[in-house]
Amino acid sequence: MKHAVTYELLKSDSRTKARRGIVHTPHGDIQTPVFMPVGTQATVKAMRPEQVADMGANIILSNTYHLYLRPGHDIVKEAGGLHKFMNWDRAILTDSGGFQVFSLGKLRKITEEGVKFQSHIDGSRHMLTPEKAVEIQNALGSDIMMAFDECAPYPADRNYVKNSLERTTRWLKRCKDAHKDIERQSLFGIMQGGMYKDLRKQSAEEIVELDLPGYAIGGLSVGEPKELMLDVLDDCVDYLPQEKARYLMGVGTPDYLFEGVERGIDMFDCVLPTRIARHGLCMTSHGRVNIKNAKYERDFTPLDAECDCYTCRNYSKAYLRHLFKADEMLSAMLLSNHNIHFLLKMMENIRTAIEEDRFLEYKKEFYDKYGRF
Amino acid sequence: MKHAVTYELLKSDSRTKARRGIVHTPHGDIQTPVFMPVGTQATVKAMRPEQVADMGANIILSNTYHLYLRPGHDIVKEAGGLHKFMNWDRAILTDSGGFQVFSLGKLRKITEEGVKFQSHIDGSRHMLTPEKAVEIQNALGSDIMMAFDECAPYPADRNYVKNSLERTTRWLKRCKDAHKDIERQSLFGIMQGGMYKDLRKQSAEEIVELDLPGYAIGGLSVGEPKELMLDVLDDCVDYLPQEKARYLMGVGTPDYLFEGVERGIDMFDCVLPTRIARHGLCMTSHGRVNIKNAKYERDFTPLDAECDCYTCRNYSKAYLRHLFKADEMLSAMLLSNHNIHFLLKMMENIRTAIEEDRFLEYKKEFYDKYGRF
Repeated sequence: MKHAVTYELLKSDSRTKARRGIVHTPHGDIQTPVFMPVGTQATVKAMRPEQVADMGANIILSNTYHLYLRPGHDIVKEAGGLHKFMNWDRAILTDSGGFQVFSLGKLRKITEEGVKFQSHIDGSRHMLTPEKAVEIQNALGSDIMMAFDECAPYPADRNYVKNSLERTTRWLKRCKDAHKDIERQSLFGIMQGGMYKDLRKQSAEEIVELDLPGYAIGGLSVGEPKELMLDVLDDCVDYLPQEKARYLMGVGTPDYLFEGVERGIDMFDCVLPTRIARHGLCMTSHGRVNIKNAKYERDFTPLDAECDCYTCRNYSKAYLRHLFKADEMLSAMLLSNHNIHFLLKMMENIRTAIEEDRFLEYKKEFYDKYGRF
Repeated sequence: MKHAVTYELLKSDSRTKARRGIVHTPHGDIQTPVFMPVGTQATVKAMRPEQVADMGANIILSNTYHLYLRPGHDIVKEAGGLHKFMNWDRAILTDSGGFQVFSLGKLRKITEEGVKFQSHIDGSRHMLTPEKAVEIQNALGSDIMMAFDECAPYPADRNYVKNSLERTTRWLKRCKDAHKDIERQSLFGIMQGGMYKDLRKQSAEEIVELDLPGYAIGGLSVGEPKELMLDVLDDCVDYLPQEKARYLMGVGTPDYLFEGVERGIDMFDCVLPTRIARHGLCMTSHGRVNIKNAKYERDFTPLDAECDCYTCRNYSKAYLRHLFKADEMLSAMLLSNHNIHFLLKMMENIRTAIEEDRFLEYKKEFYDKYGRF
């Protein structure tokens, strides 16, 4: 049987681990390295889906935990699946809900069976298990399903992390067993192991054994110093097979995207572009812009003179500042559009740079203009 | 000198006062009767401007009071005027700020000179006068400017209303004197007179005397019973000249639009379609829909099967309900789109019906399907 999702390597950078490839999915090809905008509740916030597609996004991420609680995966299934429900006919990756339920703190309890938790919406009691996470994602019908894992906190002691990653492997096996239709949807495994390189290696060996169509690196960018994160990440990638897609979960600032690509990552996701947009913050080719700043009151130039997005083609900073100050929805709509476009365009430039074997040059050029992170 | 805005009568209904015409403006022709979506703060809430245009809106309304306070009319002027500032190249009508400052209650004080008031944003003190209202609207550069008037409350005693309308006439003369460039922007006068028909007649005679390019009927739909409103409106129109556009201010429910058209009104505006959208309420060809209703949880049909708007073509009630419950901005975006489309389409149907001399038949047909108001 053919896996729903496969990875094709097109070109490797000559000086770094960066690589240019394609992730083939039932809903189209995804050129990698790729940034995946996040549509937590079956919508990329403040965007119409075709606006996201028109900017070049071929895959988005959506959240199992949220959709399970509201509207309920059974409703999404009845609607004909998540793609149809939300009017998005390109690829979708769903997380497993693991990260969200672990983030609930006191509202959850972990056992070998799974995680008992209380809904953040109404306090109702639920249990997520590997089997349930697969059942929900089967109902949603995403192209890429993520395994139900535990993302260990930082800092965490070695024993805790070792036990946690071993349980994550056992859960992964249960996910794999529970998932039947591998030609329709592909299950990705998730490597854990915290900041312990030998545990990362152990986790990688255990999950690679299962021969899944793709692997994610979880449990990074959870509060640890950037240098530590990059050092661990550097090793992680080496434990993963060349012929499978690699996904670094929850990472999305421009610098982390560059550093991730340099270390061989193919896929990234983050709520950053839409979240900061709602706070009036924008990424531009010359660094961050806070649209609330009084200096933009009479600035009739676009947010980013080098940007050709809808927002920059049609509106001035003075207007965008006015919208934000006046608490108008169009503010979040236009800034989200710009920020998503910015990251998608940056990734497109990264892909071209790898093709032309000038990834490091492009990285330096970008950093020089963008400024300090 | 030619007025910026002129009215052309195309056809009168044979059985009612309904009429089909064109309002010619420097930013294009407006087929009347017309509903004007409201963009209070230089944006039609939750909509990109070209989405409003694509649905067939050729004119929107914006608010002098709001734009004067934020971002300031000087900034809009520096930006190149309101059209350019907000990326809308079709016609704009601005109100005078009169209605808003009178609505401030204790925060304002009326004198012959004008109205002193405190900003609802920061409590700062300001004064609007006829000259100031014209100055602001000149800076905004709207196609149609409204005179600075007093909208008398309901109920109000005869003496109060008479004094008020006479001051409104004096203020109108001051507005006309203050407005110089009549080839670029046109000033419309506003009839007042409360619910007293003889005072309506007095007000009409005084303002028609000034030979302005258009006239509005103010001070209706301010809390009075519908029958009283329609009875007064019936008379009001008879006092206005055939060859000038007639605008009924702040009216926008479907029934009031039909009744207004039947009585000879050409122009209407209301925040209704976008405001109710943000509360999950929609107008459909079979009446109001409250998208929050539990019965739509698994309703995978569109909001309105007879509607061809973007929302109805692409989304189900179940999805729209989910978005509303999940507090997603896309909810207001999609429902606003639908509601504006609904009123624009209804007005288009009304125009066609007048052309085909079957206005009353269309009205009955609409009411029969839409249900009780």
